[in-house]
Amino acid sequence: MQTIHFALMGGCDAFVGGGAVRLLGQEAAKAFTGRKAALITDSGVPAEHIALCEAELKKAGKEPVRLVLPAGEPNKTLAAAESICSFLYENGFTRSDGAVCAGGGVPLDIAGFAAAIYMRGIAFVSVPTTLIAQTDSAYGGKTGVDFREGKNLIGCFSQPKAVVCDTDFLRTLPERELACGMGEVIKYGATAEPEILSRVSRAIPDDDTVAECVRIKRRFAEEDFYDTGVRRVLNFGHTFGHAFEAASGYSLSHGQAVAYGMLAAIRLGQKLGATRPGVYEAVLSAIKSAGLGADYGELWEGAKALIRRDKKSDGSGIAFVLLEDLGRPVISRLSVDRILNSMK
Amino acid sequence: MQTIHFALMGGCDAFVGGGAVRLLGQEAAKAFTGRKAALITDSGVPAEHIALCEAELKKAGKEPVRLVLPAGEPNKTLAAAESICSFLYENGFTRSDGAVCAGGGVPLDIAGFAAAIYMRGIAFVSVPTTLIAQTDSAYGGKTGVDFREGKNLIGCFSQPKAVVCDTDFLRTLPERELACGMGEVIKYGATAEPEILSRVSRAIPDDDTVAECVRIKRRFAEEDFYDTGVRRVLNFGHTFGHAFEAASGYSLSHGQAVAYGMLAAIRLGQKLGATRPGVYEAVLSAIKSAGLGADYGELWEGAKALIRRDKKSDGSGIAFVLLEDLGRPVISRLSVDRILNSMK
Repeated sequence: MQTIHFALMGGCDAFVGGGAVRLLGQEAAKAFTGRKAALITDSGVPAEHIALCEAELKKAGKEPVRLVLPAGEPNKTLAAAESICSFLYENGFTRSDGAVCAGGGVPLDIAGFAAAIYMRGIAFVSVPTTLIAQTDSAYGGKTGVDFREGKNLIGCFSQPKAVVCDTDFLRTLPERELACGMGEVIKYGATAEPEILSRVSRAIPDDDTVAECVRIKRRFAEEDFYDTGVRRVLNFGHTFGHAFEAASGYSLSHGQAVAYGMLAAIRLGQKLGATRPGVYEAVLSAIKSAGLGADYGELWEGAKALIRRDKKSDGSGIAFVLLEDLGRPVISRLSVDRILNSMK
Repeated sequence: MQTIHFALMGGCDAFVGGGAVRLLGQEAAKAFTGRKAALITDSGVPAEHIALCEAELKKAGKEPVRLVLPAGEPNKTLAAAESICSFLYENGFTRSDGAVCAGGGVPLDIAGFAAAIYMRGIAFVSVPTTLIAQTDSAYGGKTGVDFREGKNLIGCFSQPKAVVCDTDFLRTLPERELACGMGEVIKYGATAEPEILSRVSRAIPDDDTVAECVRIKRRFAEEDFYDTGVRRVLNFGHTFGHAFEAASGYSLSHGQAVAYGMLAAIRLGQKLGATRPGVYEAVLSAIKSAGLGADYGELWEGAKALIRRDKKSDGSGIAFVLLEDLGRPVISRLSVDRILNSMK
């Protein structure tokens, strides 16, 4: 078990390792004095994990009340956050009670936001169950929901009191979900710790790899909590990635889309003369090891059209993340025309 | 003109005095770099004030776009906050643009909340136009909306970048609104600065009195931003006040309800032997000078029934604000039975 402290907004400890869920009761007890604990999850989370969370909360003297949200990004709505607030209200939650969310990035984002706005904020403990949530979404204090056409357009910055990251939960993860998380692990390798790339495989990553990713996320989040500077490096692969995702009609997993996006961003860097030789091959090799695809040929025209339409050039261009080398990202302001013409 | 600095969440300057609106452009320019400025108001705010705000924003090179909300507490809903987010989205607002709200406590609370959650927060400048907003609601970082039966049940703590408090705006205030604000001014006098009580009349208060109230609010907000301790002193008169408001079917103005609530709280303190003689008479005299009523006889049974129902005794009782003397509030934990039996 590794304890990783985030010195943000009053502080938050993340407990990373197999069996970490056994700390949930103790952490909930530290996080809030009230007895009531909302146990929020979604329909995609295995019942056995929820049962474990419930048992640990009861052992600590809390009274868990369950709420199951419908799974999936299309359900990441303001209405979902409102339904949580209604649930808390109907169950008589006060500012001294708290919420626990067990699940992937979608329910964590929604529940974290609801906990931040109910009575202007009640305590929140996060229990990420997917690889992408355990390495990324559960940390750094970004909560929110999608709104109109905007991803995470409504939300706020709010830290959980603790993150209980039980890597045993990864064992029940479907292959596609695991590969999806690997896309983000590769992103950490490419932008911050190249050594991580050599650890990528189709197997469940070991505790050290997960913890290493959490430390990288912490480094960027602590330096730039409000995401206006260096933290944007973590958007590497995401400008193209979001376009690939949309061009596929969202049939592509987020991790696969980011994998494509990273390859496209490295190619762009090469065309601009910004990226050293060998970078492409190293990232490509990791992507293949993870069992992710590397050929985005069919989606390319659609993605380009979306970027041209969405990022209407207002003269200032896009803050685009390029790699000078593995572990050496740079943020370059590039016009949409420059990006797309370089990639013809 | 008086400048009062709030050292909360990144800091906020309040500019209090006649003609303060002429600083709006300069403050908006300091608060956000983007050109777009949402100018949010409600249907109760005189058009001349909005026109002044618009002109000042334009002078500073901003491009104001107006949004008028329906006036009144029943419109302080999550749907109203959502409509502001939609408006910002449709007008292409980014994180570098900002929102200005001119109005009373209701639109300020809604717009402050929407600005806090749109793209996880855009800059917000507050222009209070009523006495209650100029002395209370515009400061201290509480934003939010009513939800289900709960007042301010959804919201967050978020500071405006600046408060432009133009006391000239008070000249257009209807008599009832002015008296309503006087209820809160009397509250500051009773709990913190007894000298203020002698300045209360039916006339528009002078700039010094408004500024004095802002300084008292600042003192409590800076000591206890998250409202878990000493700031709760500002709830003086509000436990009974909310009950009177509800018992009247919300036909009572908030200020009148708080005036009744303060008198009832002082009587309770006298019955419990906690309040010195003379306090009741001093507050009663100020209430009468403001043109507010002092006889809540008819509403008393209804208010008691509501308190008994709402504040279900969970054993811990209510944190009730009593006055030992003028300017000497104490928070006492009292059971509902004790409160109501003392008041028979």
